Amino acid sequence: MSGGSDAAESLDRPPLRTDLVPIVEAIAAADADAFVAVGDRSDDDLRYLTRFAGPDRAYALVVVPTDEAVGRAVCCAPSLFREQAEREFVSGARRRGEGDGEFYDGVAREVRTERAGDHAGERAAAVVRDLIGGDDERGDRTLLVPPSIPHDAAVYLERAGNALASTDAVATARARKTDAEIDRLRRVQRAAVAGLARAEAVLAESDVVEPTDKSAGEPRSDADRRPPLCWGGEPLTTERLRREVNAVLAARGVRDAGNTVIGAGLSAADLHYVGDDPIRPGETVLIDVSPRGPDGYHGDLTRTFVVDGDGGWERRAYLAVESAREVALAEIEPGATAASVHGEAAAELGAYGFDPSAGEGEPGFTHGTGHGVGVSLHESPSLSGAGELRPGHVLTVEPGVYDPKVGGVRLEDLVVVTEDGYELLAEYPFGIVPSERE
Amino acid sequence: MSGGSDAAESLDRPPLRTDLVPIVEAIAAADADAFVAVGDRSDDDLRYLTRFAGPDRAYALVVVPTDEAVGRAVCCAPSLFREQAEREFVSGARRRGEGDGEFYDGVAREVRTERAGDHAGERAAAVVRDLIGGDDERGDRTLLVPPSIPHDAAVYLERAGNALASTDAVATARARKTDAEIDRLRRVQRAAVAGLARAEAVLAESDVVEPTDKSAGEPRSDADRRPPLCWGGEPLTTERLRREVNAVLAARGVRDAGNTVIGAGLSAADLHYVGDDPIRPGETVLIDVSPRGPDGYHGDLTRTFVVDGDGGWERRAYLAVESAREVALAEIEPGATAASVHGEAAAELGAYGFDPSAGEGEPGFTHGTGHGVGVSLHESPSLSGAGELRPGHVLTVEPGVYDPKVGGVRLEDLVVVTEDGYELLAEYPFGIVPSERE
Repeated sequence: MSGGSDAAESLDRPPLRTDLVPIVEAIAAADADAFVAVGDRSDDDLRYLTRFAGPDRAYALVVVPTDEAVGRAVCCAPSLFREQAEREFVSGARRRGEGDGEFYDGVAREVRTERAGDHAGERAAAVVRDLIGGDDERGDRTLLVPPSIPHDAAVYLERAGNALASTDAVATARARKTDAEIDRLRRVQRAAVAGLARAEAVLAESDVVEPTDKSAGEPRSDADRRPPLCWGGEPLTTERLRREVNAVLAARGVRDAGNTVIGAGLSAADLHYVGDDPIRPGETVLIDVSPRGPDGYHGDLTRTFVVDGDGGWERRAYLAVESAREVALAEIEPGATAASVHGEAAAELGAYGFDPSAGEGEPGFTHGTGHGVGVSLHESPSLSGAGELRPGHVLTVEPGVYDPKVGGVRLEDLVVVTEDGYELLAEYPFGIVPSERE
Repeated sequence: MSGGSDAAESLDRPPLRTDLVPIVEAIAAADADAFVAVGDRSDDDLRYLTRFAGPDRAYALVVVPTDEAVGRAVCCAPSLFREQAEREFVSGARRRGEGDGEFYDGVAREVRTERAGDHAGERAAAVVRDLIGGDDERGDRTLLVPPSIPHDAAVYLERAGNALASTDAVATARARKTDAEIDRLRRVQRAAVAGLARAEAVLAESDVVEPTDKSAGEPRSDADRRPPLCWGGEPLTTERLRREVNAVLAARGVRDAGNTVIGAGLSAADLHYVGDDPIRPGETVLIDVSPRGPDGYHGDLTRTFVVDGDGGWERRAYLAVESAREVALAEIEPGATAASVHGEAAAELGAYGFDPSAGEGEPGFTHGTGHGVGVSLHESPSLSGAGELRPGHVLTVEPGVYDPKVGGVRLEDLVVVTEDGYELLAEYPFGIVPSERE
């Protein structure tokens, strides 16, 4: 649980930097003049392109092709963030050990700071004009922009004589991960393992409180009537368990990012429930941990446990989901279609008697089998899409079955597609009965 | 440090819900037909308006005035999020204890789920058409939108025959906090107090390691040459200290949100430095904790410490900043101009010999005296603006002085403007020498 080993690791870690050449190539392919992105630190495209963790107000990136080199990239940042932008956007992209040396991808980077009150879109328009010239009145420049660029920024750019065309070049570039990105993803996933192990240990340590005389006559199969588990002398709740997980994540230097979803019993069937409920014996306890690391990459790991279960619905669901996970993983290799992975998992769940394409609120498999993970928790490729898997894709495999009247079981791992199959980014054992694994 | 008391508190806490009447009024005032917002869970306007913590893909809110009631609001959410949206957007806005009863502000709310692949902007356009009719071809509808609505959503809305006009009604509504919002802000600020107390305790527990023989002859005033502080048998670093703070925040049920900024020595002069540096005796250690609570509201608290200092620059800086803080606070009352608060703080720092309007990278006071805090960490009102303070404004007071060759000192508290002055949302003691306060 000490941070020491993680810090030591960092010495050998490959530098995290973004190759801007695909953006320069996209400009050329579209016969455009520049690429412009505008957003704040919650904009994952900008985070990926600049490696600048960014301010919570809008900033901009302008990329242009150049004759003398591959290209030129300007980050327009608020002046209070100049040092951080220089460090993360400029210095981080230089070849290692070369100080003021060459940029590793041949795209020269610089920071220009905004005057207070400047709109990032206005500032980007000025940088475009400065870098590539052209006539504002004639409107003879075409800019590639991400589809969801803020509308006010788009209007500033258009009023400055630029035609806008949207591009998916950034999403395409993000889908296949470099070794440095896989290193960051693996590290965050290991933190997720530690967080989940904490939750499992707390469940393993919890005591089953026998019903008092008053309710002793009630049928034991009615989970709602059983007293909550007791941990540390107090009733165990989903919020207490979540705090235990999140404290471990924080101690490992990653953030829970609001993504630690813990459901118990009926709330385990609600995919995004974040409440505070007592955890009772016999209930499915679904724990989904998706932390975000300091470089912005996510982990994503889910296991389901039952304390003192009666071996009913949850056992059957667990076996089905474990089996669906195996057939889905077996399908993963370069060239496989993403949808075929989902198809295999769904068919297996169907063979176990669960509805493989249940609608919202219905019992069965209600979601897709997986999604890409990177700077965004959900990104390309989706396992429901028609695309083919390629080496460097990082995605979740997460079959699950739910019954709104009982609970839910989901098992989720994070894998990277390799040249000849896949590799789990971290391993976590299976078993519906919680054990001490810390 | 136990979560139990926080959970108990929640029973009496005022319900957090957003009055949509000002949005309905803004539609009427602008002679528009509807209000539309589109964004994902990082969009703080949407979080405020809907109280829906939201998905990490775009969703939409449509508000229209109605004849029979005040108005009608539709949240277009992805179908996997229906239960969460119903709970947070719809149920949360009903009068307490009334179940399916009236909406507390008279604006009827409902959730409509999107088909997979629907763009939120397209879906919003369909809802607008359904709610208010009109002719797509004629383009006779005007929609109020936040300025930074995603461009692709804006284009969908325009193509569906709507003219767009931007509105600042949401920012205006957000600036003045309700009692329920102040309750959430106070609670998060208390968690920030606990996090900061942990950092201060670690500093107080740390040992000063005397230089070994090799460097014993070096001048003691050269802070860089002194060995780092030692805590728990290992060198204390900014990252170790940050993890200690963040684990306490997590255990209190709030997130660090990537905002725990800890600088030591030279990095204390860098406003957004998040690195891993040894902490040495004699250096200013600046700790800025800005967690985010489960309802989305932020805290913001900063203190500066020096372990085994020599009473030089940092003592003078601390006195100046403490004094600037006092004169700034004395200025805060309804009707005071925001800029006058900054002016008083700056003048006081100037009187102590620090440059009150230093540029980036220069020694002195390099930033504003404060900013509003709410669902966003930085929001209206800014203490550099021309506006007047009004009851319900919640803002930071955070004078600081920096010297890029020495370090930085900042003291920051969070206050709410009251009818006759201000109130600190939480108190944290002062003192440059760290103490155990946990």
